[in-house]
Amino acid sequence: MKECLHILKIGGNVMGDEDTLSSVLIAFSKKEGKKIIVHGGGKKATTLAEKLGVASVFVEGRRITDDQSLEIAVMVYAGWYNKKIVAQCHSLGMSALGLSGADVNAILSEKRPVHQVDYGWVGDPKKVNVSTLNHFLKEDLTLIFCAVTHDGHGQLLNTNADTIASTLATSFAPFYEVNLTYCLELPGVLRNISNLQSVIPSLDFIAFQEGREQGYFHSGMIPKLENAFNAIENGVTKVVICGPDSFLTNGGTHICK
Amino acid sequence: MKECLHILKIGGNVMGDEDTLSSVLIAFSKKEGKKIIVHGGGKKATTLAEKLGVASVFVEGRRITDDQSLEIAVMVYAGWYNKKIVAQCHSLGMSALGLSGADVNAILSEKRPVHQVDYGWVGDPKKVNVSTLNHFLKEDLTLIFCAVTHDGHGQLLNTNADTIASTLATSFAPFYEVNLTYCLELPGVLRNISNLQSVIPSLDFIAFQEGREQGYFHSGMIPKLENAFNAIENGVTKVVICGPDSFLTNGGTHICK
Repeated sequence: MKECLHILKIGGNVMGDEDTLSSVLIAFSKKEGKKIIVHGGGKKATTLAEKLGVASVFVEGRRITDDQSLEIAVMVYAGWYNKKIVAQCHSLGMSALGLSGADVNAILSEKRPVHQVDYGWVGDPKKVNVSTLNHFLKEDLTLIFCAVTHDGHGQLLNTNADTIASTLATSFAPFYEVNLTYCLELPGVLRNISNLQSVIPSLDFIAFQEGREQGYFHSGMIPKLENAFNAIENGVTKVVICGPDSFLTNGGTHICK
Repeated sequence: MKECLHILKIGGNVMGDEDTLSSVLIAFSKKEGKKIIVHGGGKKATTLAEKLGVASVFVEGRRITDDQSLEIAVMVYAGWYNKKIVAQCHSLGMSALGLSGADVNAILSEKRPVHQVDYGWVGDPKKVNVSTLNHFLKEDLTLIFCAVTHDGHGQLLNTNADTIASTLATSFAPFYEVNLTYCLELPGVLRNISNLQSVIPSLDFIAFQEGREQGYFHSGMIPKLENAFNAIENGVTKVVICGPDSFLTNGGTHICK
């Protein structure tokens, strides 16, 4: 039987609340098996951009990343949040290694081609250095990934953290029983966005398609669900979308084929 | 014979000039043996602090680090500069891994005790995780250290980059023939600060003491020289203080016992 690899994506709103982050990290530290955390930090990046007078422009929820926005994103994601989580992990007994996709060429990306929209310095993952990362996992290092990758030619690229999480999950699926958890501010996928009690306990692809057609899901949830279904279709054992509280109780929405 | 380990400290002014940084990294990439880079970034941290309306306070050249200054330092050092160097190294054929002292508990520090001055979140290195770092070096990873460490209890600490460089150099001296280079904006240690031609080609401890008594050295150079002599006294094979140009020609000031 394959060993378990827990991949936890922590959303920007969870990152922004110290006590919530801390309780999620404590629960995660108790999981048996190998561990990877992927974190965002977009909210803080937007706040910092505001303070610096840099406009944050989004198209369909994705940040348009010019030179200044890239610098801000890298400072917040790879700098403050990444090292803060790494230091906290050590205080909880996990030996943690913070990584961007540039480190050890962990995730090589391609700058998103310009079609209708020029997203700027935004990258889409193309290749994961599974061999070196697996080597780190075998040393019992908890890997902490921020949402930054590179193109291999010296250019850093802002990269969606949900996509990094599902890319890592599918890359490790041949070697581990991968459990992928998206921990966000909501308690799970909701049938009705204005009712926090309406968590859907389990969601398969047909129900997802039906719900999308009927407009159940709010716009931010759809790309997350697409990443989640991509993972479950590509060998990931278990995919859960939950909130900080439901993470502690193994609740949330379980994604099924 | 022991293998060579090159440790290069790149100063804040060198970091701030893209072309200069690039030429130094190209020259460094051609060195035979294992490689570590330690970088500062204080100038950029000061500029960012100004933009954010956070006062930068220094006592004897050392930054007083409150909560906001720490966040800025970590964002600039561990975020932007660290990942920028990592990405550039990959474009030059070096497989690079960016690290703070918190990652893999690489450098455990102690918050500087409050005597006459409270430096705030400033740390002095106490313990290097030589075993894990050596493991990385043996995998031919070029390690890129920023000037951030931690206390093991979740607190990040701003830490002098010169001290990190000499601490790493002495920690690896039993295992490697360590060459430690401090690359700064000046071409070396100057006999006369207003004359860039007055580089002292070689400096021993007696000459350093005499020069200090006679007021030869400018104040910023003295702690750097203390770190340099500490390294050469503790088993480091070669210590050089040079500028970007003299780094390319193996010039600068060679430190002798």
